[in-house]
Amino acid sequence: MKKLSEEQKARMALAVLVEPGCRELGQLVRTVGPVEALECLVQERGISVALAGAARARLYLAGVRKSQDVGTQLAQRMTERAEHIGARIITAADDEWPPALDDLVKASRTGSALRRDTDPPLCVWLRGPLRFAETLERSVSVVGARAVTGYGAYVASEFGYGLAEEGFTVVSGAALGVDVTAHRGALAGGGPTVAVMACGIDKSYPAANAGVIEQIATEGLLVTEWPPGTEPHKTRFLTRNRVIAAATLGTVIVEAGSRSGARSTLGYARLLGRKTMVVPGPINSAMSIGCHMELREPGTTLVTRVEEIVEEIGNIGELAEPIVGGLRPEDVLDSLQARILDAVRPRKAATAEYIAAVAGVSGRDARRNLPLLVELGFVVSTADGYRLSSTPKAAISAEEGR
Amino acid sequence: MKKLSEEQKARMALAVLVEPGCRELGQLVRTVGPVEALECLVQERGISVALAGAARARLYLAGVRKSQDVGTQLAQRMTERAEHIGARIITAADDEWPPALDDLVKASRTGSALRRDTDPPLCVWLRGPLRFAETLERSVSVVGARAVTGYGAYVASEFGYGLAEEGFTVVSGAALGVDVTAHRGALAGGGPTVAVMACGIDKSYPAANAGVIEQIATEGLLVTEWPPGTEPHKTRFLTRNRVIAAATLGTVIVEAGSRSGARSTLGYARLLGRKTMVVPGPINSAMSIGCHMELREPGTTLVTRVEEIVEEIGNIGELAEPIVGGLRPEDVLDSLQARILDAVRPRKAATAEYIAAVAGVSGRDARRNLPLLVELGFVVSTADGYRLSSTPKAAISAEEGR
Repeated sequence: MKKLSEEQKARMALAVLVEPGCRELGQLVRTVGPVEALECLVQERGISVALAGAARARLYLAGVRKSQDVGTQLAQRMTERAEHIGARIITAADDEWPPALDDLVKASRTGSALRRDTDPPLCVWLRGPLRFAETLERSVSVVGARAVTGYGAYVASEFGYGLAEEGFTVVSGAALGVDVTAHRGALAGGGPTVAVMACGIDKSYPAANAGVIEQIATEGLLVTEWPPGTEPHKTRFLTRNRVIAAATLGTVIVEAGSRSGARSTLGYARLLGRKTMVVPGPINSAMSIGCHMELREPGTTLVTRVEEIVEEIGNIGELAEPIVGGLRPEDVLDSLQARILDAVRPRKAATAEYIAAVAGVSGRDARRNLPLLVELGFVVSTADGYRLSSTPKAAISAEEGR
Repeated sequence: MKKLSEEQKARMALAVLVEPGCRELGQLVRTVGPVEALECLVQERGISVALAGAARARLYLAGVRKSQDVGTQLAQRMTERAEHIGARIITAADDEWPPALDDLVKASRTGSALRRDTDPPLCVWLRGPLRFAETLERSVSVVGARAVTGYGAYVASEFGYGLAEEGFTVVSGAALGVDVTAHRGALAGGGPTVAVMACGIDKSYPAANAGVIEQIATEGLLVTEWPPGTEPHKTRFLTRNRVIAAATLGTVIVEAGSRSGARSTLGYARLLGRKTMVVPGPINSAMSIGCHMELREPGTTLVTRVEEIVEEIGNIGELAEPIVGGLRPEDVLDSLQARILDAVRPRKAATAEYIAAVAGVSGRDARRNLPLLVELGFVVSTADGYRLSSTPKAAISAEEGR
């Protein structure tokens, strides 16, 4: 790890002393800078009682004496732990810092509905060969339930793979279920994938995903705003979700129970003006209830294919191909011709006049259009008149009429 | 069947001579009345060549001489066939006529996108004990694919039954698959159900559904705008669909392939300002592709429960109960308390100061909130400090954090 600036050291120390997302601290850092903000925290000067008390408790736990240079002490410890596994730290001053994360300042101002501090990270620890900002330029988050069903796993895997093939970075939270399946799909598709963690960069959580997390560290990027050594907590997952939403152009929920945390990621995406996309599922699946609740909200887009996701977040002109079935009679016939064709019988030939009467069109219209129907292969002309062709070309599928 | 008025006879004759929905004929009838309109058709006076030719072909097929009273002749034939099975005929003049059908005049003016004549029916044949207009006052159409899956059959049956229980008339097309399953569900739920047919009232189509169709004729209502003896044609199903859409407060598609005719019913419902509701399904099911295509259109509401349908089309105040899971820690804790709880360890007790430092809150906040967490049963207070309670009350489900 390269030599740290005073500012970087201060940011690392602040990340140790205060939980991420704290609006008060974020505002302080934006006003006086991180070095002075750290000084305010240590001296308990110009900050709220709650923030002062929280920092004091952490300083006590860390065994740091205020008389010493707190920034240098804490930064050194964090650096040592991170270096041990080849992690690096970046701040808003680095050109690897994604500007998208700073949109969270806006969310922090307006996001009172979420009842959480949603300020941008002060710094992030990274592990992996990819450059953070560039990797996120064409990115989408794919998130969802831990208790994934076979259906959700299929979708997460397909979407992860397909998005990778389309050149998108798949961002997720490395959790069990949808998250890890999307990461695996992206890795299999040969694409970059980013796991945003809710614990220190030196932790592999959950342990069951340690193998994939290690693979992401080798081929993709592990990201966290918690200093090394931090344990994952439930509230940290929710705080982390704001970074997944902010970092990407849009968020896709694959499966979600009614109380799934994936819905909070979508909520942040909505708040930030990112694209909000949701995969539907069977209405009798508990793991799609949250998806359907979201899809009943305005502004959420139902997606069923990678192309539809790309249409939402891709460049202008990256449009999903329309879904079309095979060519059917209706595709080439106008409504008059379709009515005439309906009146032609399969085996018993009839005159144009008879067919006209059954169809409810004039004899002239029938005489004019029946030769076309013959030419197209739908109808056969015989000595007794016209009957339906028995070739498959004119076969009518069960689904067509309804 | 009671004695027919001249107007009723004329309308029946017009229904024989011209396919339903014809805009030109509808406008003529609205301008000069049905008796004079029939005269115009027979005399080929003041009408287009196409309409004159179509009527001539039908007159020829029916073997009716123009010198005779065409209205009386045709009406008598139709009446005889209908009376045979106890059907009755109504027109806009009857108080049993649902005014909602006349909204189709509007659709006929603006519906060029559908490329079909969408005028209201001139008259309808009915069979069954229910009164048409009253039965439709609280009604919803439930339609969908013929090639229904097990999932679609489950949903159609549940919705048919549940809507009947909520006092709604279930309207559908008596087709194989979703339609007949919805009818059956409604019958099982003890509710009224209406089948709108695309053939004469004396035909049971499809034959496989003859039993249900007969049951609907006994307990519900069979409806058609085609005169007795008319065969079902594919184009007639699409023409019929406009009546299903117009007759009801809203249309629900349960399952639909990309080319399903159920989508035309929804299109008419949209055109008429009726509620358009669609059931989602697995994205890898061909029978949900059409549903998802519709759900990607603005103004279409995703529905997963009968309550949600009732909320759309029911009276003011008939709101769906929100979906809620069991009570969880987050429901009673604010974010500060949740963070403190996250920092309490399961087995090893810790002091309030230590917990505060881990949680990133002040010691004061921890000391103030830990007793509440104890009182709620999440945390146990011991001689060494606080640890998590092992009672189920504080158990955390896998889905919760994420």
